[in-house]
Amino acid sequence: MFKNVLLVECQDTPGLVHGITGVLFKHKLNITMNQEFVESDRFFMRTEFEGPPVGSPLIAELETILPQGAIIRLGEQRPKTILIMVSHESHCLGDILIRHEFKQLPVRILGVISNHTSLQNLVNKFDLPFHFVSHENLTREEHEAKILTLIESIAPDYVVLAKYMRVLTPGFVNRFNGKMINIHHSFLPAFIGAKPYQQAFDRGVKVIGATAHFVTEELDDGPIIVQQVINVNHTANAQTMAQSGKDVEQIVLSKALKLLCEDRIFLAGNRTIIFD
Amino acid sequence: MFKNVLLVECQDTPGLVHGITGVLFKHKLNITMNQEFVESDRFFMRTEFEGPPVGSPLIAELETILPQGAIIRLGEQRPKTILIMVSHESHCLGDILIRHEFKQLPVRILGVISNHTSLQNLVNKFDLPFHFVSHENLTREEHEAKILTLIESIAPDYVVLAKYMRVLTPGFVNRFNGKMINIHHSFLPAFIGAKPYQQAFDRGVKVIGATAHFVTEELDDGPIIVQQVINVNHTANAQTMAQSGKDVEQIVLSKALKLLCEDRIFLAGNRTIIFD
Amino acid sequence: MFKNVLLVECQDTPGLVHGITGVLFKHKLNITMNQEFVESDRFFMRTEFEGPPVGSPLIAELETILPQGAIIRLGEQRPKTILIMVSHESHCLGDILIRHEFKQLPVRILGVISNHTSLQNLVNKFDLPFHFVSHENLTREEHEAKILTLIESIAPDYVVLAKYMRVLTPGFVNRFNGKMINIHHSFLPAFIGAKPYQQAFDRGVKVIGATAHFVTEELDDGPIIVQQVINVNHTANAQTMAQSGKDVEQIVLSKALKLLCEDRIFLAGNRTIIFD
Amino acid sequence: MFKNVLLVECQDTPGLVHGITGVLFKHKLNITMNQEFVESDRFFMRTEFEGPPVGSPLIAELETILPQGAIIRLGEQRPKTILIMVSHESHCLGDILIRHEFKQLPVRILGVISNHTSLQNLVNKFDLPFHFVSHENLTREEHEAKILTLIESIAPDYVVLAKYMRVLTPGFVNRFNGKMINIHHSFLPAFIGAKPYQQAFDRGVKVIGATAHFVTEELDDGPIIVQQVINVNHTANAQTMAQSGKDVEQIVLSKALKLLCEDRIFLAGNRTIIFD
Repeated sequence: MFKNVLLVECQDTPGLVHGITGVLFKHKLNITMNQEFVESDRFFMRTEFEGPPVGSPLIAELETILPQGAIIRLGEQRPKTILIMVSHESHCLGDILIRHEFKQLPVRILGVISNHTSLQNLVNKFDLPFHFVSHENLTREEHEAKILTLIESIAPDYVVLAKYMRVLTPGFVNRFNGKMINIHHSFLPAFIGAKPYQQAFDRGVKVIGATAHFVTEELDDGPIIVQQVINVNHTANAQTMAQSGKDVEQIVLSKALKLLCEDRIFLAGNRTIIFD
Repeated sequence: MFKNVLLVECQDTPGLVHGITGVLFKHKLNITMNQEFVESDRFFMRTEFEGPPVGSPLIAELETILPQGAIIRLGEQRPKTILIMVSHESHCLGDILIRHEFKQLPVRILGVISNHTSLQNLVNKFDLPFHFVSHENLTREEHEAKILTLIESIAPDYVVLAKYMRVLTPGFVNRFNGKMINIHHSFLPAFIGAKPYQQAFDRGVKVIGATAHFVTEELDDGPIIVQQVINVNHTANAQTMAQSGKDVEQIVLSKALKLLCEDRIFLAGNRTIIFD
Repeated sequence: MFKNVLLVECQDTPGLVHGITGVLFKHKLNITMNQEFVESDRFFMRTEFEGPPVGSPLIAELETILPQGAIIRLGEQRPKTILIMVSHESHCLGDILIRHEFKQLPVRILGVISNHTSLQNLVNKFDLPFHFVSHENLTREEHEAKILTLIESIAPDYVVLAKYMRVLTPGFVNRFNGKMINIHHSFLPAFIGAKPYQQAFDRGVKVIGATAHFVTEELDDGPIIVQQVINVNHTANAQTMAQSGKDVEQIVLSKALKLLCEDRIFLAGNRTIIFD
Repeated sequence: MFKNVLLVECQDTPGLVHGITGVLFKHKLNITMNQEFVESDRFFMRTEFEGPPVGSPLIAELETILPQGAIIRLGEQRPKTILIMVSHESHCLGDILIRHEFKQLPVRILGVISNHTSLQNLVNKFDLPFHFVSHENLTREEHEAKILTLIESIAPDYVVLAKYMRVLTPGFVNRFNGKMINIHHSFLPAFIGAKPYQQAFDRGVKVIGATAHFVTEELDDGPIIVQQVINVNHTANAQTMAQSGKDVEQIVLSKALKLLCEDRIFLAGNRTIIFD
């Protein structure tokens, strides 16, 4: 599951694929899958290859042939590490824990942070660290500062908001650019404000959706990774619609997490390039 | 395809199913499928049955046992008639014409109305009347008055807006309560305003949807009949997203039309009860 | 989630809906949802209703008005109880355990039986009984006899084969007619024999499916409850196809279990009537 | 819609991407999308590029750097041409004709061949040549010889079997290796023999599928291009299942045709590599 993967992103210019593959060839690396895409003069390339161990010398050599500002990432031969943040809802966390337990996701969970204790018991079942960081009697900034200290001490590759229900400040999320993903419900049309499933019921929607995305200052408006819907009919009420929403949320978040941790995603402004 | 169908809608009260089925039983009609649903004290029932011809005497007898204000509909042994309204886009019209030609939709098309002539040739291929009603040099009300006269003279069971791109006034649509359906694109999130596919592209959506709904004063906000989405990826641009949108629109509109013309839909406020 | 539900199945004859609803009306029960279907002269009806407690007197009265041999089931105001049988694979069991833990399935798990110990640890996490029944040094009949004794002592409403990988004899499965469900992979086309995912890969299939069904003598050929597929592309190998197969299997089995335990399924020969 | 596309297929060896892109670079061609995949030591690459007109000199130069036996295809700046073969059923043909008429498929239809006249009228509506080749009083070989002469005189890029219901001999299909596609229904499980929809109904399937594939000697067993399913429930009978089958067949065939004519498909033994 952990392949040699190279990701390159830079200003487009002729000869990039030729140049990059030349460096790989010189290092006796054989390309087994190569995907490349250019959009608005921006070049994105993901390469899976076989061969002897590589590392910083390869990156250094690539830098010499790529335009200034190129972003080069080399997937390491280990599962990505994640830290999960939750509040009360169990469905996304539970799905990730079970998949993690049986190695069906290419990740290693370093722990779970919550502003509540209701999911502590579930996390403990899987012998994983549960960090309770109460927001009681704290300003938002003080609470976030505590969480930030914790995250920095654990140092995961990615942070996964698996139904963490508190708004995060721009100051906080900006520290995790491209490193933090979130899941939220989606509707056609969209419903703003409280009780979205009641609104969806009142509106008589026939599909319920979920969107997994990177977290940016714009909260639920970051670059989209995965979207999916499921059908509901007139017998659904607000409560059963919410259950359908949970079902699709856990599917969508696990898919997004898999894409992320297999090094398949590029950020391109507010869009994502996904090589799957 | 044209079964004996009875639809009853009224204030809920105990004994309704018993009472209605008693009347059918008395008329020696055998029920083969019966669906009933109660919501907010409103009773909806759809019954397919076999037996000798029935008609207004059955309705009259049902009225005597049902609460005042009950709405009773008896599906007739003929395809529903429809009139289609279009502007420039061919995809929904084309799909309906082909299905109609080969009897894959339980409808009879009485004609097509358009404010443009670009689809006249297509309609003529299928030997159906094409009515060009130009909006040039007319106020919106004058234009609608001409269309209204035309529709009333043709007297279809339903009017299908198959990408008719002009806004209709409340005065116009209110004459077609529950008798006029529309198709429009849908997105997660929703995009208001011009160039929705460009907005969808800029936002990096991963699904493109379509919604078929009854037309009410609120325009694209009437009771929803069918919703569906298809996936798009980062290689899609605004133009190919629009093509995906067309693909899903024609599927959704044909589905909605089928449900409508098989007498499967009840209006329940701004929601629909659909017995499929 | 636990509604008053009545299920009636019998030879079709005119007046059945009228008769049954008359009995409910007499007992001051108000029908909120009623679904009825006739096929090949067989009548199936599912009714949700509100009102005072009912029980055997209602059934007795219904028997007096229904054709001989009618099957009458009254859903009880409690979650259905299930016993799960597994071998080595965790994905379906894990999904059910998590949903059970957080009350997202209308069931109560009484325990898990396995012919291996590899999933014992997972079951223990959720404080549920794990029954190891080794097949070592036993004939198939001896092994089944042990399991049968165990099931009879636990007396669940339903038995769920969640990737139990041993063939069951007709003598065993015939004791659980309509009471035992199974999940297995499905392909277009079907692949018989060993290593189905390798066969699917070699054949270059573009979808992988799963089927949940009642268990009958014909093994994987019993009445189908739910079927679903997911897409795979050329980058999938036999191993990742197997993972996709697991993903869709757990979704399909949980859906089937929900339909079963909400009293929504009738058996009709080798077909199922499902009122959802 | 008609991009500069290069497809290369050959024995895998290190440095191929580097070499090929070097040739493109030398010709001042800028790569905008590049996809490459290696399987069982076989190398497949699809490249979209921008730049001045290219042609046989580019191919000749590529040949000098590629392993012997390399297959090089250069997509031309024109829609692919197709010839359609049908029998009685209209749904796939109708969908393709409408999409062709409004330029929603990147193809140019050169004509329609049929062993019946029932679809002649439909084809004529779109001002396309209809070739009736009766099989009456002809051996299979005689009939195929007539069709072959016709196809060779028309010389399309691809032949599309859009519900052509006669078995074709190996001698015939072998002349169209990778140049002829077919659509047929698919089921879980598969149903062999007559009346597949009646068998599917009897079996109580919950999904109906369709498969588009290249035609090989093995008839319905050629390399798969697209597969998709739609849901059916217990109210479907053999006739409505057949209608659902038609709905999914036309969607699947149009998708496959689009992939084919956008130069996105490689044949890899009995599998397909599809860069979409």
